[in-house]
Amino acid sequence: MAIERMQKSARMSQIVVHDDVVYLAGQVALEAPNRSVTAQTQDILARTDTLLAEAGTNKSRLLSATIWLTDIRYYDEMNAVWDAWMDPANPPARACVESKLAMPKYDVEIMMTAAR
Amino acid sequence: MAIERMQKSARMSQIVVHDDVVYLAGQVALEAPNRSVTAQTQDILARTDTLLAEAGTNKSRLLSATIWLTDIRYYDEMNAVWDAWMDPANPPARACVESKLAMPKYDVEIMMTAAR
Amino acid sequence: MAIERMQKSARMSQIVVHDDVVYLAGQVALEAPNRSVTAQTQDILARTDTLLAEAGTNKSRLLSATIWLTDIRYYDEMNAVWDAWMDPANPPARACVESKLAMPKYDVEIMMTAAR
Repeated sequence: MAIERMQKSARMSQIVVHDDVVYLAGQVALEAPNRSVTAQTQDILARTDTLLAEAGTNKSRLLSATIWLTDIRYYDEMNAVWDAWMDPANPPARACVESKLAMPKYDVEIMMTAAR
Repeated sequence: MAIERMQKSARMSQIVVHDDVVYLAGQVALEAPNRSVTAQTQDILARTDTLLAEAGTNKSRLLSATIWLTDIRYYDEMNAVWDAWMDPANPPARACVESKLAMPKYDVEIMMTAAR
Repeated sequence: MAIERMQKSARMSQIVVHDDVVYLAGQVALEAPNRSVTAQTQDILARTDTLLAEAGTNKSRLLSATIWLTDIRYYDEMNAVWDAWMDPANPPARACVESKLAMPKYDVEIMMTAAR
């Protein structure tokens, strides 16, 4: 079965699709570095909408999400944006934990899978 | 292909099923907060049995697991419970790392996938 | 649908295959403990080639990867090995974060999925 890859560099693909499952790379706030957790989460979820659309799906089809915060005290602030964005009838399975991220200008990273 | 979601809030689903793959949310010790790693892991794995049954499968069909411990020194204590619970003929692929969790009353979080 | 498990202990399988998706356990540098991040990453990716071959696939079919580093300052050193190994036309979706690992002799752990 064929694999589709979109928005790829030599290091990673932002989107991989196989057997109608969409794997997104961990998303950070490319357009909101060093800004609030609110602004970073909004940027990540807006880009997620774009990536899901490019993959032929949308947020009502999310399957799972892993969320990393550089300080778990950001949990409520991240969740406020998450909850406002989420299709409340169709939320994914989810885990949220604390980890340092690759670049200090980012405090939130979210990696998701979705069905097409 | 349809997606089934069970035990859902507006934020996340505890169970998502798509194409006979079951995605469970990261499980913490809801019934054993602030207790030993042994008690927390037992609580998580008992709830996992219940969730897998609700999804129409069981622990002999696990595919993958990610385990987060708030202190990696809990590794052996968590594993003792894990090993006792696991179907030894059918263990999943697994990773176990250290991360702080969303609430300080929890020291263990486990996120799994299974086949239905 | 049947599940295949390979290189299994009672605790985990190094390879699980279901519906032509291959789930690998988190890999650490079994043959290069306490060595440089370069050596550890080379060891992990060489073992990954072996595991993928045993599962009937190869690195051009990777779907997703999660990378944990014990110190995020190892990011560039790990990436240099990753970039040299990767099939540049077929990289997976990826996330890389910092977490302590189960044993202090390891600084890198990589968990991947692939299509068969």
